[in-house]
Amino acid sequence: MSLAGRDLITMSDLSTEEIRALLDTAGQMAEAIGFGDAGKRHASERLDRIMATCFFEPSTRTRLSFESAMLRLGGSVLGFSEPGGSSVAKGETLADTARTVSGYADILVIRHPKMGAAKVAADAAEIPVINAGDGAHAHPTQTLTDLFCLKRRFDRLDGLTVGLFGDLKYGRTVHSLGATLARLGSQVVCIAPEQLAMPKRYLDEIEEISGERPQCVTSVDGVLGELDVLYATRVQVERFPEEEREGARAIAADFVVDAALMERAPENMIVMHPLPRVEEINPEIDDDSRAAYFEQAHGGVPVRMALVAHLLGLLEDERNAFRGFERRGDERPEAVASPGRARQEAEEGPDSASAERKCRNDRCITWEERFLAGFFQTMPCGEVCCAYCEEPLEEED
Amino acid sequence: MSLAGRDLITMSDLSTEEIRALLDTAGQMAEAIGFGDAGKRHASERLDRIMATCFFEPSTRTRLSFESAMLRLGGSVLGFSEPGGSSVAKGETLADTARTVSGYADILVIRHPKMGAAKVAADAAEIPVINAGDGAHAHPTQTLTDLFCLKRRFDRLDGLTVGLFGDLKYGRTVHSLGATLARLGSQVVCIAPEQLAMPKRYLDEIEEISGERPQCVTSVDGVLGELDVLYATRVQVERFPEEEREGARAIAADFVVDAALMERAPENMIVMHPLPRVEEINPEIDDDSRAAYFEQAHGGVPVRMALVAHLLGLLEDERNAFRGFERRGDERPEAVASPGRARQEAEEGPDSASAERKCRNDRCITWEERFLAGFFQTMPCGEVCCAYCEEPLEEED
Amino acid sequence: MSLAGRDLITMSDLSTEEIRALLDTAGQMAEAIGFGDAGKRHASERLDRIMATCFFEPSTRTRLSFESAMLRLGGSVLGFSEPGGSSVAKGETLADTARTVSGYADILVIRHPKMGAAKVAADAAEIPVINAGDGAHAHPTQTLTDLFCLKRRFDRLDGLTVGLFGDLKYGRTVHSLGATLARLGSQVVCIAPEQLAMPKRYLDEIEEISGERPQCVTSVDGVLGELDVLYATRVQVERFPEEEREGARAIAADFVVDAALMERAPENMIVMHPLPRVEEINPEIDDDSRAAYFEQAHGGVPVRMALVAHLLGLLEDERNAFRGFERRGDERPEAVASPGRARQEAEEGPDSASAERKCRNDRCITWEERFLAGFFQTMPCGEVCCAYCEEPLEEED
Repeated sequence: MSLAGRDLITMSDLSTEEIRALLDTAGQMAEAIGFGDAGKRHASERLDRIMATCFFEPSTRTRLSFESAMLRLGGSVLGFSEPGGSSVAKGETLADTARTVSGYADILVIRHPKMGAAKVAADAAEIPVINAGDGAHAHPTQTLTDLFCLKRRFDRLDGLTVGLFGDLKYGRTVHSLGATLARLGSQVVCIAPEQLAMPKRYLDEIEEISGERPQCVTSVDGVLGELDVLYATRVQVERFPEEEREGARAIAADFVVDAALMERAPENMIVMHPLPRVEEINPEIDDDSRAAYFEQAHGGVPVRMALVAHLLGLLEDERNAFRGFERRGDERPEAVASPGRARQEAEEGPDSASAERKCRNDRCITWEERFLAGFFQTMPCGEVCCAYCEEPLEEED
Repeated sequence: MSLAGRDLITMSDLSTEEIRALLDTAGQMAEAIGFGDAGKRHASERLDRIMATCFFEPSTRTRLSFESAMLRLGGSVLGFSEPGGSSVAKGETLADTARTVSGYADILVIRHPKMGAAKVAADAAEIPVINAGDGAHAHPTQTLTDLFCLKRRFDRLDGLTVGLFGDLKYGRTVHSLGATLARLGSQVVCIAPEQLAMPKRYLDEIEEISGERPQCVTSVDGVLGELDVLYATRVQVERFPEEEREGARAIAADFVVDAALMERAPENMIVMHPLPRVEEINPEIDDDSRAAYFEQAHGGVPVRMALVAHLLGLLEDERNAFRGFERRGDERPEAVASPGRARQEAEEGPDSASAERKCRNDRCITWEERFLAGFFQTMPCGEVCCAYCEEPLEEED
Repeated sequence: MSLAGRDLITMSDLSTEEIRALLDTAGQMAEAIGFGDAGKRHASERLDRIMATCFFEPSTRTRLSFESAMLRLGGSVLGFSEPGGSSVAKGETLADTARTVSGYADILVIRHPKMGAAKVAADAAEIPVINAGDGAHAHPTQTLTDLFCLKRRFDRLDGLTVGLFGDLKYGRTVHSLGATLARLGSQVVCIAPEQLAMPKRYLDEIEEISGERPQCVTSVDGVLGELDVLYATRVQVERFPEEEREGARAIAADFVVDAALMERAPENMIVMHPLPRVEEINPEIDDDSRAAYFEQAHGGVPVRMALVAHLLGLLEDERNAFRGFERRGDERPEAVASPGRARQEAEEGPDSASAERKCRNDRCITWEERFLAGFFQTMPCGEVCCAYCEEPLEEED
């Protein structure tokens, strides 16, 4: 199993076997850097590879997590955060930026406000591309980081009951996590205000994968006792329609994790959160051994180390401890097909659709990227979606 | 004497023995990097440690000085400068940011516009924290850098007469330098316009330490002949009350170091300045051998190298030349107590005060940081001050 | 031939022998990093040198290209991009910033919006300075990068016919490229709308060098067949006088490189562009083997590696493959004369002029930099120009 030269745009790019392999390597990386236990750290040697962090919107936590991972691997980093006034401002396409930057580095990490942007970069770049968050679309390394936390706490990824708590409508994180947990043999319970309920398409997806439709409730009270994990997200009053704002504040108060809730919670239930947390987790519970959110964030480093190591082909068939990477000579990863060729393949393939169709999603990169022919794919469920942002072409019922 | 795992928030965190040890190491670092003499540089080896520079307000000189120090040590750097749009904007507390970032690095350098911010970060982070300037409160590495310049020029730190010149009211730098010089056995003379005189509390502090109250004058003329050092700071016309602006310009002109003043100055008197200088030092004196401000700034690199090396426990009991650090295995520095525990200790300790008291200083971090209980400490002089910004609780007379 | 300790401000700083030597080294660097052919990469070792990238205006492509070069050499990078709110905002002179930063690094790369800024930095800094673009003045590494692309494609730099296409009036890039090609024994053809024609002074310069005045046309049609290279630049409608905007759009359409034009072009004619391209090269030609602009941009890395290696004295007399640099001990490069001394030399030298003269160019650094005496030089053509921005003192006819 080799991930060398691959891109990671969404969790669908990885088989469950690959997910498990990545998490195994992450465990070895964690050990090598003395993660958690304040144990001994193995000295790393210089790695002659460069990561380019291309952040078209700032996200300090994610960016620093990637940069730390690359530096812990012994590599180097270059990049930008918020490209104000740079080539982007001069009207350069994202594809051109990605292709140019791919001449400066060995792996590219992109964060962008528009959905589908990561795929544009991956198609254009000649080096592996990792999606660090493309608008409301996907943020796969967040999901891998979440899984790593679960694995370390529970020593397994199947058979867990994870309560997704808070804003399940707008939360990109929980959409990806729910589906991935289903693939790995765990289940989720959706706990959200009605106005912020988990959208039907994700409930459909989970049911498709696991055979079971997730339970959905509007209060944690009835389900707390069953949970292995309470995965909290923030309920933002601004997300409610204007006329409902008054009631929204009261509802938001019901979606706070505090000492009182922890008192009633199972003694082995952990609390997770993608951070930053604002009001929804009271710091009074930070010293509770069940509060896992900081170790969750810190685990992002060995996870990203593992991912980068695999995509750069540093590990290949034999998984080694961090100390002794088996480097396969100095070969460059296999080049990705040029954008032109990718487009051709798409148009001629069975999943192509008429070039006259246009993505309906105004947050999709195809609305602003010049020279980008829309192209579409038929999803496993039969729906035709934009190949970039994965939003359906037809409006949902 | 070991500084491993410690934080550096203010100069009060260091004993005079520790200050001298740091400056000795700085001397070795300077030699190792070929500082000053354009001598041979010893090749440094890779150091598997990461510095996180967390600059909540930009300060290019200070940040680059720290980054250079870490790179000269063979280490790596990650960080941010001006967190616009990042987690901070999303309402994350400084404590959470510090705790998260401390999972990405081995040492954290913080610059923040609010007084007391460095202590918040130090309490929350699990790695050593260095204050690179927290509002009007403290900037200890500036003081260490100033001392290093004095040491190199005079080969001693006691028995010197240092003229603090310019704005002594708002200048954070001169407050810290004055007290530290007193601790080391040197004296200061305060030369400032009345409106920008050294505040009473610092004169009290110096008198407390040395037994002598510093001489205060409004013109350099009467004291120039006694000075070993003229430490210049900028007189900003904007600092004067509105109605006094007209006269302010004339006063500012009296606080300029130029060729005429150097003509009258002792031949061994050096001129220092924390930089940037604007009008207050005329570049016509830059080539005078007594002009020390650029070498002063450059000395900040070996000083910061020494500090980082000590805090990371790279040197321990035996001080070595840069070439051969004695690394004590790969152990992590001792973890700092969790914020919860620190707060508990403070509230139960003899220095605690009622939680209803609130810091009066609106430039203190406690005014904006959520979940941060005010807590107070009784200073050596008997005054009760905020434990973060160190401003007195009661208004001064 | 040694470039150790030198600065690179404009292409005039390099003899043709030095240009060729740099490009030879660039070829070795390219091979060492596995450029182009996806061949084997030689592992680089750690280089104990720091590059400071001082970008007073952001330019992501250029900055990342320099940073990649330094990291590929095994070195480190620190710096800033857009100094908002830093020392610059506090009124510090560029000279002071350059002098301070030169204590933090071994080589300084500056990008600045004002013409002549690179020279100010070079005079003040104590380390080699590379101009990464100073306003409309010069961007010599762009020219070297262009030449490297030509060398790789044609295996020579003389006897080529290069069509400069588009905006030749405001394009800094084509001004420098034209003159340098003439010095190397190649010729240019100027293809531009009348309103954006190559200015007389550059045509004069090329004629001075080569004995031939370049052909100037307003349409590519008549000359396409003679071209080895079509070097495209963007025609910006905003550059036309207001009253001509309507016609400008039609003119701009004639300066687009598309499949139709490529159909008519010679089969060995390559297309170059400094990037970013907006409308002027249609991506439909990206997969044409004659489209050289991305490999052109990528070649900037080995070119900058070569330049840095030479300026840092890493190569000296023997040019080695990247793998085995012959480092000349750990000596610092020779210090540049202090600004004071440089100014003195200028005023006493044969090229000096009365200090009362003032540069007429309001985009020149001398209009904003305090303490910078204007000084002037007589150019080879007899004209007296500002020594910083190189604009003539008298208005052109």
